[in-house]
Amino acid sequence: MNSRLIDQVSWNSDGLVAAIAQDASSGRVLMMAWMNRESLQLTIAEQRAVYYSRSRQALWRKGENSGHVQQLHAIQLDCDGDTLLLQVTQIGDIACHTGRQSCFYRSWQEADWVATEAVRKDPKDIY
Amino acid sequence: MNSRLIDQVSWNSDGLVAAIAQDASSGRVLMMAWMNRESLQLTIAEQRAVYYSRSRQALWRKGENSGHVQQLHAIQLDCDGDTLLLQVTQIGDIACHTGRQSCFYRSWQEADWVATEAVRKDPKDIY
Repeated sequence: MNSRLIDQVSWNSDGLVAAIAQDASSGRVLMMAWMNRESLQLTIAEQRAVYYSRSRQALWRKGENSGHVQQLHAIQLDCDGDTLLLQVTQIGDIACHTGRQSCFYRSWQEADWVATEAVRKDPKDIY
Repeated sequence: MNSRLIDQVSWNSDGLVAAIAQDASSGRVLMMAWMNRESLQLTIAEQRAVYYSRSRQALWRKGENSGHVQQLHAIQLDCDGDTLLLQVTQIGDIACHTGRQSCFYRSWQEADWVATEAVRKDPKDIY
């Protein structure tokens, strides 16, 4: 285990750090998920995003089922060490389990959250 | 209180939601902080980023001391409702309390986190 990699991160009480994935080419923010120490190590080692699924309480190699792998270009740490920013290439151009490019597809408009982005692929055909 | 605004958000056990601020013009991710129900309402009402400071346990109108206000252009919610994405204009072009444009100024390079962005303004001159 690389201690320099791990020690600069301010792990929360659950041993996790927030991780934002941004498309390295377009700059679009694709998703936010969580990493534990092991997933951060694996992300660096495998040069692809490996998160920790809080609901499944297990490592989550992004794209392991869908093929929508996130190839790593760079990884950045914020000033207080509690958030990571990943610059990635999103394989398939779909990051969201709903079949959209980004998980941030709802916008606040006037008086409601409105889905402003079309589904690119039926989730049934992804998983 | 606008129930549509609030009810679609998956507030965590502390009553908070993660909020990412992105420069609406350049696409650069500036910071990640937290909001409670009141700060989200105020962000919409005042069209500027209002966070909730976990350390101070108080509302945090970004820029209230530094002048580095984040003017709101749009606000987006992710698929599972636990993260917001704010499109902002960063007044002063400095989001970080260290005097840098972005809080994500450290990059993992080979074997260490390396600060890859210069300080634009001495923090002593900001606060």
